[in-house]
Amino acid sequence: MNQSALVRLVLPDVRELLHEAKKEDIARALKPFHAADVAELVERLEDQDVATLVAALPDGKRAEVFEQLETPQCARLVSLLGPEALAPSIVRMASDDRARLVAALPPELGQRLVALFPADERQDVAELSKYAAGTAGAIMTSDHVGLKPAETVKDAIDHIRQVARRRETIYALYVVDEHDHLLGAVSLETLLLSASDKTMMDIMLAPISVKVDADQESVVATLRHYDFLAVPVVDKQGKLLGIVTHDDALDVATQEATEDAQKMGGMAPLSASYFDTSFPRLIRARAVWLSVLFFTELVGGMVLKGQEEVIHKVLPLVFFLPLITASGGNSGAQAATLVTRGLAVGDIRLDDVWRILRRELAAGATLGTLLGTYAIVVAWVWGVESFRGVALTVWITLLCVVTAGSLLGSLMPVFMARIGIDPAVTSSPLVTCLVDVLGIVILTTVAGMVLL
Amino acid sequence: MNQSALVRLVLPDVRELLHEAKKEDIARALKPFHAADVAELVERLEDQDVATLVAALPDGKRAEVFEQLETPQCARLVSLLGPEALAPSIVRMASDDRARLVAALPPELGQRLVALFPADERQDVAELSKYAAGTAGAIMTSDHVGLKPAETVKDAIDHIRQVARRRETIYALYVVDEHDHLLGAVSLETLLLSASDKTMMDIMLAPISVKVDADQESVVATLRHYDFLAVPVVDKQGKLLGIVTHDDALDVATQEATEDAQKMGGMAPLSASYFDTSFPRLIRARAVWLSVLFFTELVGGMVLKGQEEVIHKVLPLVFFLPLITASGGNSGAQAATLVTRGLAVGDIRLDDVWRILRRELAAGATLGTLLGTYAIVVAWVWGVESFRGVALTVWITLLCVVTAGSLLGSLMPVFMARIGIDPAVTSSPLVTCLVDVLGIVILTTVAGMVLL
Repeated sequence: MNQSALVRLVLPDVRELLHEAKKEDIARALKPFHAADVAELVERLEDQDVATLVAALPDGKRAEVFEQLETPQCARLVSLLGPEALAPSIVRMASDDRARLVAALPPELGQRLVALFPADERQDVAELSKYAAGTAGAIMTSDHVGLKPAETVKDAIDHIRQVARRRETIYALYVVDEHDHLLGAVSLETLLLSASDKTMMDIMLAPISVKVDADQESVVATLRHYDFLAVPVVDKQGKLLGIVTHDDALDVATQEATEDAQKMGGMAPLSASYFDTSFPRLIRARAVWLSVLFFTELVGGMVLKGQEEVIHKVLPLVFFLPLITASGGNSGAQAATLVTRGLAVGDIRLDDVWRILRRELAAGATLGTLLGTYAIVVAWVWGVESFRGVALTVWITLLCVVTAGSLLGSLMPVFMARIGIDPAVTSSPLVTCLVDVLGIVILTTVAGMVLL
Repeated sequence: MNQSALVRLVLPDVRELLHEAKKEDIARALKPFHAADVAELVERLEDQDVATLVAALPDGKRAEVFEQLETPQCARLVSLLGPEALAPSIVRMASDDRARLVAALPPELGQRLVALFPADERQDVAELSKYAAGTAGAIMTSDHVGLKPAETVKDAIDHIRQVARRRETIYALYVVDEHDHLLGAVSLETLLLSASDKTMMDIMLAPISVKVDADQESVVATLRHYDFLAVPVVDKQGKLLGIVTHDDALDVATQEATEDAQKMGGMAPLSASYFDTSFPRLIRARAVWLSVLFFTELVGGMVLKGQEEVIHKVLPLVFFLPLITASGGNSGAQAATLVTRGLAVGDIRLDDVWRILRRELAAGATLGTLLGTYAIVVAWVWGVESFRGVALTVWITLLCVVTAGSLLGSLMPVFMARIGIDPAVTSSPLVTCLVDVLGIVILTTVAGMVLL
């Protein structure tokens, strides 16, 4: 990424500046930098330097930098520099970022900070903190522009000019009645292209909104579906509570993809980035699933133990054991990935079960036949004892296990989604593990029939 | 998703409408629907109904619907209805969607279509089709607003009012010299808040741009970093070629997450959605990796074969084989997922190797000790022969293999990225497979030392 490269380049100069220059010089030197770049500098510097840098920023720029920082980073700064010094900047932050920051602070520190806010902002934080993480309410901002239905285009433009500086976006505008019920949506573009005596009633479109308790993923889907800049968030009565903007949607999309990847990688999703997660928390997120998988896999061990006799008689089967369990698991992981992502993106729907089943049955059988054929060649090259029996056993087992893997891997995410669980928990490791066990059962059963 | 539910609800009514109503009635009935929703209807209907629906739409709305359709779907419509009937709508599409559509058509059909375009649009398609898929050039649109440095705020607003309808966005504006070199960026918000006699030179900001051959992922990262609505795309000489807008960035982010998930799930990424991919293509995408993994895993089988003697003597080790290979693979998959996503999102950098190494060494050793302890309990419960030797062997093996899995899984993505390969190819199945083989080697080696 070119931004990171840029920041890394200036980092030594910034360190020198912070150690030697006066506050005003630091502020002047940082002025041309975009807040996002200053935030990135802050993330790379040591605590002492960060304190100097943040102290040198004017309140407005500091608020912008805080909006760009990851919430835990920003919370650390509040602990470091104290709420008293930072309150004037934090008051100026976007309402959603501000509420998230307060929520991330230790309770005592959060209260001390909020007590320093003017009454309006204090109430705003209380309002926004009501919503559960992962919902529209938790990612919305209350800094939107609300217009009245009878307002003319000219009045609306004047109105927007006055409030613009304190609003997250002035490009998506919303028309509300006297009780704040959402009536319509107007884009700044429409406003600019309309005759100045038209009213909002004349030019507004029927609004498309999301409910405040909607899942954040569905908010992103709505924004993506309509290519919106922002989507309004309403309560059950249709009252406009806030908006979710495109930049938040992009952050959520990235964050959701990470969480899904972690679930699909067989672990509990982390709430922070890799290095920001404490070691005990990292271990916990991984140990739980590793243990679950261990004890599932144990069933495979027990099956082998129960079939000791078969194994003892035809030891070459053991050589094929890793091949068989791995092939089933891999084909299952592929199918699970395809269907999980398909569901997440909306390409696959829950009522597509039969289409998936037919496809994966065919795909599994085709791939299983292919791998089974490889295995026959391998058995022949290895010159195993009782070649015919072993080859037949391994071929049948691979065909069955690869097909079973494809079916299990593809149907499990659909099943999870149907019972209301995130399909991404159908991790590759989970499917691999279940198919491993199944592979052992099939191998020993087939061997028992063919070879004994 | 609520939109899908909505569309499914009206689908039967729409079918009836298409079979019975006249063209004008259909157009009137569809008028209140957002183009994105009409596009979703089109995706659910049978070919004959789609033809009726699309034929009934006015050119402008039809262009909007085409912009919202997946490119392969849209290409199918052109084949179905013929380029002559659709050219007037296609000319009105956003330049990026139009160029992608032409590229997706069979060459002969594409040429027939482009021949129907006015000269300007024909040249635009030729320009945009020069850029390789996955680069900024391939996702940019050339429908941006360019302003002159000496233009006043009042003139600029008039200028924007005139061209707005043919531009993708009027919220992000760019100032260029007479040779189209990018000089600065102005937001419509700034324009609206500035005195009307100021010039663009006075109010513009230094532009942040991306190169036309930049990877599309880095374009998304730039938009995300700066919370931009759009980012300008320039050539080597700094000439403004187009812009990438927030909605395209969200689509790219989603698409990249799917591709990464597919790679991480151990298969070649599909270029279309699950059901839009043909069966042979689906099989190919999966068979290649399955075969590679099969032959890697074969090494494990060969190691087992080479150690036939050890296995024969201490058969209980075989019962632990699935546990050992699975545990190593799972811990490797977790580490690989963490690091791959960390790299993709920018939380982890390539020079963090030593920090990762230390963390994963500690995590692997901790998790390995945990699983090793489980295994000792299992061996005791099972009452295996030569308990002490087997327990010690399995404990050492699990400790080694889980640690090795964590290290391999975490370092492989970094290594891949360093040599310029997408770290997402470090799939869970690949790591699982390598660690499987390693697990077998470690188990037989340790067993040889402890038990013989």
